[in-house]
Amino acid sequence: MAKELKDLTKRSEDYSKWYNELVTKADLAEQSAVRGCMVIKPYGYAIWEKMQQTLDRMFKETGVQNAYFPLLIPKSFLCREAEHVEGFAKECAVVTHYRLKNDPNGNGVVVDPDARLEEELIVRPTSETIIWGTYKNWIHSYRDLPVLCNQWANVMRWEMRTRMFLRTAEFLWQEGHCAHATAEESEARTVQMINLYADFAEKYMAMPVIKGVKSANERFAGALNTYTIEAMMQDGKALQSGTSHNLGQNFAKAFDVTFINKDNQPEYVWANSWGVSTRLMGALIMTHSDDNGLVLPPHLAPIQVVIIPIYKNSEQLAEISKTVEPIVEQLRALGISVKYDDAENRRPGFKFADYELKGVPVRLAIGARDIENGTVEVMRRDTLEKQVEPLDGIAARVQALLEEIQTNIYQKALKHREEMTREVDTYEEFKKEIEKGGFILAHWDGTVETEEKIKAETKATIRCIPLEGDKTPGVCMVTGKPSAQRVIFARNY
Amino acid sequence: MAKELKDLTKRSEDYSKWYNELVTKADLAEQSAVRGCMVIKPYGYAIWEKMQQTLDRMFKETGVQNAYFPLLIPKSFLCREAEHVEGFAKECAVVTHYRLKNDPNGNGVVVDPDARLEEELIVRPTSETIIWGTYKNWIHSYRDLPVLCNQWANVMRWEMRTRMFLRTAEFLWQEGHCAHATAEESEARTVQMINLYADFAEKYMAMPVIKGVKSANERFAGALNTYTIEAMMQDGKALQSGTSHNLGQNFAKAFDVTFINKDNQPEYVWANSWGVSTRLMGALIMTHSDDNGLVLPPHLAPIQVVIIPIYKNSEQLAEISKTVEPIVEQLRALGISVKYDDAENRRPGFKFADYELKGVPVRLAIGARDIENGTVEVMRRDTLEKQVEPLDGIAARVQALLEEIQTNIYQKALKHREEMTREVDTYEEFKKEIEKGGFILAHWDGTVETEEKIKAETKATIRCIPLEGDKTPGVCMVTGKPSAQRVIFARNY
Repeated sequence: MAKELKDLTKRSEDYSKWYNELVTKADLAEQSAVRGCMVIKPYGYAIWEKMQQTLDRMFKETGVQNAYFPLLIPKSFLCREAEHVEGFAKECAVVTHYRLKNDPNGNGVVVDPDARLEEELIVRPTSETIIWGTYKNWIHSYRDLPVLCNQWANVMRWEMRTRMFLRTAEFLWQEGHCAHATAEESEARTVQMINLYADFAEKYMAMPVIKGVKSANERFAGALNTYTIEAMMQDGKALQSGTSHNLGQNFAKAFDVTFINKDNQPEYVWANSWGVSTRLMGALIMTHSDDNGLVLPPHLAPIQVVIIPIYKNSEQLAEISKTVEPIVEQLRALGISVKYDDAENRRPGFKFADYELKGVPVRLAIGARDIENGTVEVMRRDTLEKQVEPLDGIAARVQALLEEIQTNIYQKALKHREEMTREVDTYEEFKKEIEKGGFILAHWDGTVETEEKIKAETKATIRCIPLEGDKTPGVCMVTGKPSAQRVIFARNY
Repeated sequence: MAKELKDLTKRSEDYSKWYNELVTKADLAEQSAVRGCMVIKPYGYAIWEKMQQTLDRMFKETGVQNAYFPLLIPKSFLCREAEHVEGFAKECAVVTHYRLKNDPNGNGVVVDPDARLEEELIVRPTSETIIWGTYKNWIHSYRDLPVLCNQWANVMRWEMRTRMFLRTAEFLWQEGHCAHATAEESEARTVQMINLYADFAEKYMAMPVIKGVKSANERFAGALNTYTIEAMMQDGKALQSGTSHNLGQNFAKAFDVTFINKDNQPEYVWANSWGVSTRLMGALIMTHSDDNGLVLPPHLAPIQVVIIPIYKNSEQLAEISKTVEPIVEQLRALGISVKYDDAENRRPGFKFADYELKGVPVRLAIGARDIENGTVEVMRRDTLEKQVEPLDGIAARVQALLEEIQTNIYQKALKHREEMTREVDTYEEFKKEIEKGGFILAHWDGTVETEEKIKAETKATIRCIPLEGDKTPGVCMVTGKPSAQRVIFARNY
């Protein structure tokens, strides 16, 4: 482990290489034998599970229930909503057969040509179509509404260039699909969920985000309007971290889902969908981690505190263990996840490096002299500061320190974003500034043409039209036409 | 709802129809537009979630960690273990293409023939092959062992005859995959997990099970030995509810996974795998439910107690609500999941029938007169007995009643199984008895031939060679050859 840590590329040398190495070395994930698909390893999955549990609780508090819909979607379903199929057709995994057989010509096991499906099935890239095909049977009257379902699932988009967590052919996510009786209620839920995602990002991931609306170009295929939360990574690139789509009546029309409204009239149902994925793992890593490895926010760390004994012989170890035991109990009683690592086959130096690499927020080291003095060495992962403290009352102080770390890394990320966000008024200046990374607030005339020209010339996209902040109108930096407000440009993951 | 309940077919009329109707009417699941795949509805999913959470905690207490492996398996991986591919080839969903396109001849969206995969990918029917392909990189020394991973996932087996929960083309499950340094350790883990499943079935599902070993014929494809838990449904049929496979070194050999053992020698790794699936939902339903609907064990019921106000006007409702509020709080403080259903758009009679259909273990009904008298009507779902009780101390009594129900339905199921289990010594008698359903303990000579003859002639299979109980040897009821012990025969789901 110590060796592996030493080998970690520095961020300043090659950020992208640092990321890939860290994902592997910290045991988060690895490439699988299947093109573009990753294996999420136990330590990485434990972080994802904490995200899932937190989000799941937050969803349920708003009345959402979980359900499960089929993995495979009939091709004809995917094609019902014109923009939707246009958006996903190019990256679909297609099931065409349902059986293998022994080749009569001795070529081993082959696809059985007699087992061709009448209609091809698509591995879901997202589930709007199969779900709205189902909702048709669930919804008849306004009394059946709202329907507020979420599913935790795997989805597949055949991406050509993949990176672990950030862009993989298969990924894990949750997708919420709500049906409402009115446009207003559906819009309110769409906004409620983007606010929920922003809360989760800020309070649990310690990751500041900007809430905004996507330009038409970047909208979900089939949506009227897409809300997004955008985060800034350490290298100044943007990462879209969650989206919530107001789908209007598009899917209800495509699947003929109507209800009898309060005025006793048939009406198409109003829809929204919203999701976050294992991409958040990439966002978490690139928001906080450093050249020593992961830095995890205490609110999502599978191990929040590790305790490492420093000893020369088994008598010393026994004595240390006796002292540590009640501390472990006190920490657990405070709801803190703690690991006492007294494994004898790894030296303390190895353990130190390993838990640093894995981003454990607080490390306590305790040796024979500490026992004599009634002290313990406390190290915080975010700043790597070490301090010798009295053992007495340590549990409560560790609890406070975890909160301090949570706040500190959020503030650090926020400061970084603020420093790398600036207003630009001319396209000339924009082209220079975009090379330096970060978010650029600039005026834009609202047209797809201008957006695409900027993207083609600078690789920058409109991340969002921010919901909060300065709403002063101006003129487009490219065309000089009127602009309603500044929007955020950035290069992105 | 009341109408739907009235329409529920009686078990004595048509057990199979009763089951299908109940799954739909109780909002557990429904058929989807995709052949053989179901939609798990929110209420059904909430029960599955309780199963998941319980099992997940039990797994983790034994040191197991969760991880995630790819959905799609290269065909060549599936083919590496000869028996394994033989077992699964006939029911595989095969991905052959990765893109759709607009047909140049105007036939809409079609599979793009230029996007054919070089190697077909199989939607996982189970993950031994992809996981052992991965473990090869994880395991080098005995110090890397054991590896104890589980994944919660969807899998696909292209079944021709499907029934909701019991046999579906796609189903949800968990699959544990452990790697060990010795045969003994792997066998111990295999047995540990079948014991864990039995504990779960009995303590949470209130479903008695028999632990045993599968005959060679019924073994998992690629295993040395399969342990099973077998439950008896109300109609006397057996339902295999969980399996744990000792895989020996078969998959390690197929994927060349070796490690340096303590004697510094290379050795193939020892493996086991174990799983339960959404099939358990079917088992739960068919163990306890009745002609009025579901009967859920309190330990897995999403709603354990429902409270229904009986009122004539809003003043009465307000007064009842004021009385109910502290009871709800007391129940919640005891960790009991409670719903106060004061919805005004459904009459009490409808609510009663609905919660009976949904199997809520305890119902409290409280009216204006109860307020005056300080009483409440308590109904237990398992026996449908009603009793008027003092409000004072009701929370503690409800808690005790929930445990009583849990025990009672277990005992009832156990009694049913015992009554429908008998020893038979001649094949003549066997043929008569098997028609009556239930488990038959009979002697068998241990050969595949005899087993297949019995199956062909009576549709009964060997459910297991029980681990516990009478081990007296005897002679095979068919061939008269020696038999080591009686085995369990039954018709099965």
